[in-house]
Amino acid sequence: MVNWFSRTGKRAEVPRLRPRSETEPATKVDLAELTPDLLTFLGKAAYLQLTIFENLGRAMAVAPTTEAKEVLSRVAALSLAKHHGLTAEIRRHGEEPGAVMEPFTRSIDDFQRVTQGGDWFEELLACHITAGFLDDFFVHLAAGLPTDYAGRVTTVLRADSGAELLADELRREIEADDKLDSRLAMWGRRLVGDTMLVARATLAPSANSVSDEARIEPVFTELIAAHTRRMDGLGLTA
Amino acid sequence: MVNWFSRTGKRAEVPRLRPRSETEPATKVDLAELTPDLLTFLGKAAYLQLTIFENLGRAMAVAPTTEAKEVLSRVAALSLAKHHGLTAEIRRHGEEPGAVMEPFTRSIDDFQRVTQGGDWFEELLACHITAGFLDDFFVHLAAGLPTDYAGRVTTVLRADSGAELLADELRREIEADDKLDSRLAMWGRRLVGDTMLVARATLAPSANSVSDEARIEPVFTELIAAHTRRMDGLGLTA
Repeated sequence: MVNWFSRTGKRAEVPRLRPRSETEPATKVDLAELTPDLLTFLGKAAYLQLTIFENLGRAMAVAPTTEAKEVLSRVAALSLAKHHGLTAEIRRHGEEPGAVMEPFTRSIDDFQRVTQGGDWFEELLACHITAGFLDDFFVHLAAGLPTDYAGRVTTVLRADSGAELLADELRREIEADDKLDSRLAMWGRRLVGDTMLVARATLAPSANSVSDEARIEPVFTELIAAHTRRMDGLGLTA
Repeated sequence: MVNWFSRTGKRAEVPRLRPRSETEPATKVDLAELTPDLLTFLGKAAYLQLTIFENLGRAMAVAPTTEAKEVLSRVAALSLAKHHGLTAEIRRHGEEPGAVMEPFTRSIDDFQRVTQGGDWFEELLACHITAGFLDDFFVHLAAGLPTDYAGRVTTVLRADSGAELLADELRREIEADDKLDSRLAMWGRRLVGDTMLVARATLAPSANSVSDEARIEPVFTELIAAHTRRMDGLGLTA
C-alpha cells in the first residue's frame, strides 16, 4: 500500500484506485486512538468549517448568475450552521470559540490560501472537495471523543452540507464547457493533496509511530475512495 | 424642510438634525402607497440582504482577530437567515428567488461597490449602517404589501440582525484608536447618502409627484434620525 505521508518531501499524489470492492475494508476502521483532546478537535474542526464558509462566501461573490448566487447562499447557510454547531460544543465546555480556535488559525489560513481557486469554477470545486473530505475525516476522528460529545458532534458533522447543490452547479458548468474537465480534474488532485495534509495535521502528535501509520492508512484509503466517488459524480477523473 | 432628493445633481448631504422632539412626527408615517408590487419588493429586499451578507463575509475574511471573526460569523448567520426568510416568501408566491432578484442585481451591485469599505473598520461600519437603515426602510415599505405578506415580511425584517454585536466591535475599535472616529464619521455620511439613494430607488415609480414627495420626506427624516442615533451609539458624529 502506498504511504500517503512518506517523508521524502514529494508532493502526495492521488493514485488510480483499485476497484472499490477491493479497497473498502470489510470492517469499519476508525481513528479513535489518534483523536486529539476535545478542545483541539473542536477548535480545528470549527475553524476549518469557518474557512469553508468563507470560501463559499467568496464563491458566492463571483457567481456568474443570480440563480447560482442564490444556491451558494443556501450552501453557505448550511456550512455556517455546522460551524455554529461546533462552537456551541465549545461553549458547552465553558470556553470561548475565538480563543479555542486561535492556536490553529495560522496553519488553517495557509490551507485556505493554497486551496483558493483562481475563478468561479475552481472556487466551487474547492468548496465541494475540501468540505466533503473534511466532513468524512472528522466523523472518523469524532469516534475518539468523550461519548456524549462524540454523539452530538457526529450529528453536526453528518448534517447536510449542501454537497448535492454544489455538485449540480459543477455538473452544469462542466457540461457547458468541454475544456473545463481536464483543468478541474487537475485542480481536484491538488485540493485533495492539501486537504489530506491539513487533516493529517489534526491527528494527535503520537500519530507518527509505525503502529499509528498502520491505523491511519486504511482510513485515508477510505477517505480517498469517497473523494474519488465525489469526482466521479462530477464526471471528473480523480 | 430639506428636499433629500432634489434633482440638481448635487450629492445628498446629511444635515445636523434639529432635536428629536421637533423632528419626530407625532403620528406614525408610512410609505404604504409607494410600496412597489410584491415581487419587486421581495426581489429588491432579498438581494439587498444578500449583499449585506456578502459584505459581512468580506469583513469576516479580514477580521483582525479570531474573536472578531467569530462574532462576524454570528452576524452573518442572522443576515443570511433574513435573506432566506425573504426568499421563502418569493417561493411561497410560486417564483424562483434567482429570477425574481435578477432585474435588480445591477443597481444593487453598484450600491455594493460604492459602499465597500477600504479596510476592516470601514467594512464593519458599512455593514452596520446600511443594514440598519435598510431594515428600517423596508419595514416602512412593507406596510403597503398584501396583508398576509406584510405581517410575515415585517417579522423577518424586524428579526435580530446582530446590530448590537457589530456596534460592540466598532466601539471597541474606536476606543482603541483615537484617529478612527473622524475617518469613520466621514465614511458614515457617505454610506447613509448612498443607502438613501438605493432605498429611494425602491419606491414605486409614481413616487416623483409633489404629493409623494410630501409623503416620503417625513419617513426619510425618521430614518435619518435613527441613523443619527446609530452613529451616536458609536460615539460618531452623524
